[in-house]
Amino acid sequence: MLEELKEKVFKANLDLVKHNLVIFTWGNVSGIDRESGLVVIKPSGVDYDVMKVSDMVVVDLKTGKVVEGNLNPSSDTPTHLILYKAFPELGGVVHTHSTYATAWAQAGMDIPNIGTTHADYFHDAIPCTGDMTKDQMAEYEKETGVVIVNRIDSAGINPVHTPGVLVKNHGPFSWGKDPDQAVYNAVVMEQVAKMAFVSFAVNPNTTMNPLLIEKHFSRKHGPNAYYGQRKR
Amino acid sequence: MLEELKEKVFKANLDLVKHNLVIFTWGNVSGIDRESGLVVIKPSGVDYDVMKVSDMVVVDLKTGKVVEGNLNPSSDTPTHLILYKAFPELGGVVHTHSTYATAWAQAGMDIPNIGTTHADYFHDAIPCTGDMTKDQMAEYEKETGVVIVNRIDSAGINPVHTPGVLVKNHGPFSWGKDPDQAVYNAVVMEQVAKMAFVSFAVNPNTTMNPLLIEKHFSRKHGPNAYYGQRKR
Amino acid sequence: MLEELKEKVFKANLDLVKHNLVIFTWGNVSGIDRESGLVVIKPSGVDYDVMKVSDMVVVDLKTGKVVEGNLNPSSDTPTHLILYKAFPELGGVVHTHSTYATAWAQAGMDIPNIGTTHADYFHDAIPCTGDMTKDQMAEYEKETGVVIVNRIDSAGINPVHTPGVLVKNHGPFSWGKDPDQAVYNAVVMEQVAKMAFVSFAVNPNTTMNPLLIEKHFSRKHGPNAYYGQRKR
Amino acid sequence: MLEELKEKVFKANLDLVKHNLVIFTWGNVSGIDRESGLVVIKPSGVDYDVMKVSDMVVVDLKTGKVVEGNLNPSSDTPTHLILYKAFPELGGVVHTHSTYATAWAQAGMDIPNIGTTHADYFHDAIPCTGDMTKDQMAEYEKETGVVIVNRIDSAGINPVHTPGVLVKNHGPFSWGKDPDQAVYNAVVMEQVAKMAFVSFAVNPNTTMNPLLIEKHFSRKHGPNAYYGQRKR
Repeated sequence: MLEELKEKVFKANLDLVKHNLVIFTWGNVSGIDRESGLVVIKPSGVDYDVMKVSDMVVVDLKTGKVVEGNLNPSSDTPTHLILYKAFPELGGVVHTHSTYATAWAQAGMDIPNIGTTHADYFHDAIPCTGDMTKDQMAEYEKETGVVIVNRIDSAGINPVHTPGVLVKNHGPFSWGKDPDQAVYNAVVMEQVAKMAFVSFAVNPNTTMNPLLIEKHFSRKHGPNAYYGQRKR
Repeated sequence: MLEELKEKVFKANLDLVKHNLVIFTWGNVSGIDRESGLVVIKPSGVDYDVMKVSDMVVVDLKTGKVVEGNLNPSSDTPTHLILYKAFPELGGVVHTHSTYATAWAQAGMDIPNIGTTHADYFHDAIPCTGDMTKDQMAEYEKETGVVIVNRIDSAGINPVHTPGVLVKNHGPFSWGKDPDQAVYNAVVMEQVAKMAFVSFAVNPNTTMNPLLIEKHFSRKHGPNAYYGQRKR
Repeated sequence: MLEELKEKVFKANLDLVKHNLVIFTWGNVSGIDRESGLVVIKPSGVDYDVMKVSDMVVVDLKTGKVVEGNLNPSSDTPTHLILYKAFPELGGVVHTHSTYATAWAQAGMDIPNIGTTHADYFHDAIPCTGDMTKDQMAEYEKETGVVIVNRIDSAGINPVHTPGVLVKNHGPFSWGKDPDQAVYNAVVMEQVAKMAFVSFAVNPNTTMNPLLIEKHFSRKHGPNAYYGQRKR
Repeated sequence: MLEELKEKVFKANLDLVKHNLVIFTWGNVSGIDRESGLVVIKPSGVDYDVMKVSDMVVVDLKTGKVVEGNLNPSSDTPTHLILYKAFPELGGVVHTHSTYATAWAQAGMDIPNIGTTHADYFHDAIPCTGDMTKDQMAEYEKETGVVIVNRIDSAGINPVHTPGVLVKNHGPFSWGKDPDQAVYNAVVMEQVAKMAFVSFAVNPNTTMNPLLIEKHFSRKHGPNAYYGQRKR
């Protein structure tokens, strides 16, 4: 069942380790098959070095029920499902506790867009959510997804153009058209978070010209993109 | 004698190197066999890359005397023993000079609980002890243990729920139900210390909602824990 | 065609990875054959671990046209060409998004010359360019080169003595007599940027005696250089 | 000639790379044979990965002349010689541009003794020299040694108890009873410099009780030392 997607999700989870985004079991990647409405996700609390492709868990998008697999899915599964439901463009979702992105989340601060590395992949400041209420915590993982979606929507952000968010006092979530791109964007967020920490230490008042943001973003996105091997 | 525990303590000491928590001989792990009242600990000042299982030293919890082994036990042994005596739940103890946890200890500051990474494993702020008196320094390593126990007890902290402490101007001690879990918690402390350093640089006034601390801690601890593969 | 130079440029691009200056495809090295007026450069958006010598693209310095190669040249090619045209001493050019140099670029700050590590390779503060206008962004990569050349020239800087620059909100460019030296200088810039970040955190008012700058620079450059194996 | 010492010095130089204290050729280790008055030192500007034992250069302590070897000795040789002459206890000397120690040197600041990691190996604050005069720069490397010796002596520091110094705007020098111990102390300086940077960021006013400094230093030094396997 969904063997190709399981393989992709498995490999993407291992890529989190390769890119130094996780220690122990502190991260998870999922991927979705839109046609069948099934999500493949990492099992909860399983070490990366013993994890096998066949450990991947298949979950139904609508019901949240496990459809295949002998292990519990990631405890963050309800968050992933909410994101897939709200944003139909998503094919993969990633959550980590990567050092610098998590540090910004702990600071409760958006990461301002002050460089082209950021603008190449995230059009806007990477937004940070606000505090959750006691009621929201009753269905914590689900409501984490709701809070993310509300934060993206209320700011008028296009989730394809700004493929990630910080959950306050928690850590980063990122996404993409498939699990691989979601991991790629998780790496970018961590790198952007680290550089912004250093930039603001050196110059607390730095900003970027909005025109430069548009220029860089459009080099890699949209009808006039010209980075890479797309056209010749 | 206690071959299985020696193997565990030996491996846990090497894990300190694997997780980049020690350079040279700057760390030690012990484990206790509660039934016999014997503690197995790393020998003092022996390089990790020549250390053998048979170098582990067996010490009597009550008397502090070496029961087996040709080498001196870690000079921090008296601290370990005091912790085992005061907190009967402990099965393993770790001391390191890991970079960021030691930096907070040098700063003489508790590490505030500002993120779920922290709350997942440490219920409270990671406490920092105060200055020792001249009298206490006469039996330095033993009194280091006493100072830790007093700090934990006077704050009403449950040592199982907050499995570590910073000794002022010195460095971190952590513990767990066995040597492995004590090392795990040492890794968490170092990561939490690094992230808190960055978070406060970005936003000196950041805090976390106490409700979120309870929520995350209870996801992994207590009767209603649901993280990992515990139940299905 | 230019097989030796292609080999050098290929190897220099891989050296960026070896020295941890790039992740993904975020960097490029070129080299020039002054006699034929041809520039060899990395293809755009190609992963370093699948890239082959034969993927290197040959571009005409004057026209900017691709002379040989099946792939698009780096999107930063127009910047490289402008630098080669303006500074005839250059044999290699490097662009990266290395963490600390990029962080200073995002801060919009020159890196002051406060240490002999800096002075050994860069005579002056490493200059940071200013904001680009909307008109300049129409021919963005070309104008990036123009902005660099203007910044170097207007400050009266000798580009051989200070072989690199920060492009504001973007990242570092460096150069040298060949691709290898341009990479060497990129490594120096990153290291100097990291150390300056720490130095100013420790002492925001630190400076260096200009006499010491001259002394160190002249140990490695000019007629009286005596570092290394040059003369005996 | 002095084959054993050459082997030791060669290995100690490679250890600088292993401990991440140098990039390129930015470091050097020497060792002295006090009986013959001969110093063995790394050649100038030779890459660590092609360097051979036979490349080590033998220099006469008194005259500074090369006695054996086909390559130029390190350009810092005159500094090493001055240190060996002033401090007869030294058997090895190290110079690096290691990141955090160099950053403190660039800041022109002593590294205060705020932790037991520091006190275990360096009794005092690690002193930073002052500015050199134009006259001193005429014989730069020799006068660097003179400035170090004056800084140590005028502060009444015992160079065996505080085996290292920062040269202002330049970087760290350390030493020991042999090349190995000098490298060990270079590693300690770098680690201590990194931790102090973080500690002061977290708490700018932190200090350490002088009694604790004495306690820790005497655990590893002097007649009552009890760390390691010395006595049982």
